[in-house]
Amino acid sequence: MFDEKLAQKAASNLTALRAQKPLIHNITNFVVMNFTANALLAFGASPVMAHASEEVEEMVSFAGALVLNIGTLTPPWVDAMLMAGKKANELGTPIILDPVGAGATAFRTATAMKLMDTLSISVVRGNASEVLSLAGEDSQTKGVDAVHRVDEAEEAAVALSQKLGATLAITGPVDLVTNGKRVLRVFNGHEQMGNVTGTGCTATALIGAFLAVDGDSLEATATALAAYGLAGEEAASESKGPGSFHPALLDALFNLDTEKLRKKIKIKS
Amino acid sequence: MFDEKLAQKAASNLTALRAQKPLIHNITNFVVMNFTANALLAFGASPVMAHASEEVEEMVSFAGALVLNIGTLTPPWVDAMLMAGKKANELGTPIILDPVGAGATAFRTATAMKLMDTLSISVVRGNASEVLSLAGEDSQTKGVDAVHRVDEAEEAAVALSQKLGATLAITGPVDLVTNGKRVLRVFNGHEQMGNVTGTGCTATALIGAFLAVDGDSLEATATALAAYGLAGEEAASESKGPGSFHPALLDALFNLDTEKLRKKIKIKS
Amino acid sequence: MFDEKLAQKAASNLTALRAQKPLIHNITNFVVMNFTANALLAFGASPVMAHASEEVEEMVSFAGALVLNIGTLTPPWVDAMLMAGKKANELGTPIILDPVGAGATAFRTATAMKLMDTLSISVVRGNASEVLSLAGEDSQTKGVDAVHRVDEAEEAAVALSQKLGATLAITGPVDLVTNGKRVLRVFNGHEQMGNVTGTGCTATALIGAFLAVDGDSLEATATALAAYGLAGEEAASESKGPGSFHPALLDALFNLDTEKLRKKIKIKS
Repeated sequence: MFDEKLAQKAASNLTALRAQKPLIHNITNFVVMNFTANALLAFGASPVMAHASEEVEEMVSFAGALVLNIGTLTPPWVDAMLMAGKKANELGTPIILDPVGAGATAFRTATAMKLMDTLSISVVRGNASEVLSLAGEDSQTKGVDAVHRVDEAEEAAVALSQKLGATLAITGPVDLVTNGKRVLRVFNGHEQMGNVTGTGCTATALIGAFLAVDGDSLEATATALAAYGLAGEEAASESKGPGSFHPALLDALFNLDTEKLRKKIKIKS
Repeated sequence: MFDEKLAQKAASNLTALRAQKPLIHNITNFVVMNFTANALLAFGASPVMAHASEEVEEMVSFAGALVLNIGTLTPPWVDAMLMAGKKANELGTPIILDPVGAGATAFRTATAMKLMDTLSISVVRGNASEVLSLAGEDSQTKGVDAVHRVDEAEEAAVALSQKLGATLAITGPVDLVTNGKRVLRVFNGHEQMGNVTGTGCTATALIGAFLAVDGDSLEATATALAAYGLAGEEAASESKGPGSFHPALLDALFNLDTEKLRKKIKIKS
Repeated sequence: MFDEKLAQKAASNLTALRAQKPLIHNITNFVVMNFTANALLAFGASPVMAHASEEVEEMVSFAGALVLNIGTLTPPWVDAMLMAGKKANELGTPIILDPVGAGATAFRTATAMKLMDTLSISVVRGNASEVLSLAGEDSQTKGVDAVHRVDEAEEAAVALSQKLGATLAITGPVDLVTNGKRVLRVFNGHEQMGNVTGTGCTATALIGAFLAVDGDSLEATATALAAYGLAGEEAASESKGPGSFHPALLDALFNLDTEKLRKKIKIKS
């Protein structure tokens, strides 16, 4: 029923990640920096946050992937994202974009568009409302939470994927991942993830970790989301609310192993 | 002994909050952003953090309340607070101010004063030392922790409340809330809250959440502080120190329900 | 086997800290601000974060120690560090420097060098790669994680200590602390600390707390690292991974007492 090859791919990506421990360079928002860094460490990567124009080109040159996240944005951060992104493109380092709040304000929508126009981006991950806004549809996003269902944005995701030559991921109760040709659906996850701030941003960062070890961006994205969702399922079974869920999620990421991934990953193609 | 109508009001505010899930726009300090956002989510609101002058007016236009917090302040943030605040005033959106560290440095005191002079503010919440400093008294605040008792600042709070036409809340072992006419005291809470950074800032944000659903700022403030204090009591009974108290507090906020509030809210008028 | 006088010193430093509750002024990176503040509170200090040039001189004048940490750096933060640092030097307030990522980018290395050249610094704490880079050796740091062993940097630490007239601490499986004459080794700690972001930055802040109450910077540094390491040992025994380790570490810091320190501190001279 679920794709066994992709479950196997998830396991081999985790093995590669923990063997290589790639540096993941994040230019991300203030709310989630700590959570993102801890999740990357627990998953097996080596996180760094750096946003000064004085150092982003140098920092990204050591990185296995660059994560750009437009929450709590200001213009100097946009400049730093463009500098780091151009350097990443030069070096062939994959970039993943999280368009937090695109559609909510003109500044965020325009910034996401500018990053997509200027840079060659490997993966974009957002919620349904954000992806619709990037496709030029009036998504009426309210703040940073989705007001649309994943399936409402499928067509927009496929079209945007083809236009950008990128993998598009829409996360929600069932995640949708497409490279414009194939569409994968990820069934791992738990609703408690919606009650903790930054779980979406962290999904993006973990995709970055797998992109650093897996050249197939569609599969890297789907397997990272599935592994993260599986950790969420395990954390939910051991917590009493979103507060205890948060440390339990980091524990579960840390305690993922290849056997769990092979048995419990739920991706359909 | 305790006010039953206000316990009922706390319950109906929680119900309204969870039904409406209002966006709460926070311009707040770096230390507490994550905690504040998670507490708002657990309580039932939809948090957003945004501080760029390019987007604050647009963002606040979707919000049910605007939370201004002057910790880790710099001049561009003050400008953003003034822009967002003016827009909120135009739209009739309530503003709540947290004067973190007022009295500690001239910059913070002057910023709090400027925000109070320029904007029409619904609620100010601080500790006793901060409130004394806003009333023009030499409060000798040391850093961001209170060095005065709540009752030492009662007179200053009532006077400032009348001058601003705002509700003033002083938090401490027993919280005092006044609109210049009535004085309410909130007996819920636990001393462990003083051992976790940002519990005061989070109180401010949760007041913002109730302000978005309750037009009576005195009652919104007292009921939010009482609900938060109740969550603190429950968290303390399940934790071994300030580290485990933090996730337990978020769990307890998430698990609040109307029955608990009706039975356990302790407000005196 | 272990130094009993230093175990006794750790206990008396903790007692003094909790009696005096000194303000510790931190100019530090966004990733660790919350963790650092909570750890300082749990240890017994009063943390404040402030980085505006408008207020750092005033804020540091209340402080028992100034913590400078160069993670997530930009030029205005360097200016603020220099202003605060000069004021601290004027007042005789000890400064502790955490050169996060020195060696990884020219900007960070140059900033650390500038701070060391301009200010009189009491303690520098870093990992082996960072300390090597400050000693002018090509340390090939990758991001912010150490790629060298502590003992590889001992000679560099002693030389740098003598040059700066400061205490140097290299943290790792066994921490090394030197004032250029004596070398102490701290055996408390747990490997789980390496799986949580900001545990190094937090070590630096806690050293700052002990510096505020102990004029002997070598002993303040070693005893703070040992107390922190002991808390880490206790936390590890009660946690299932890095997620639950984090709150357990704060609990353990909060629950440290003089008896535990006298019995379990492991420092060798």
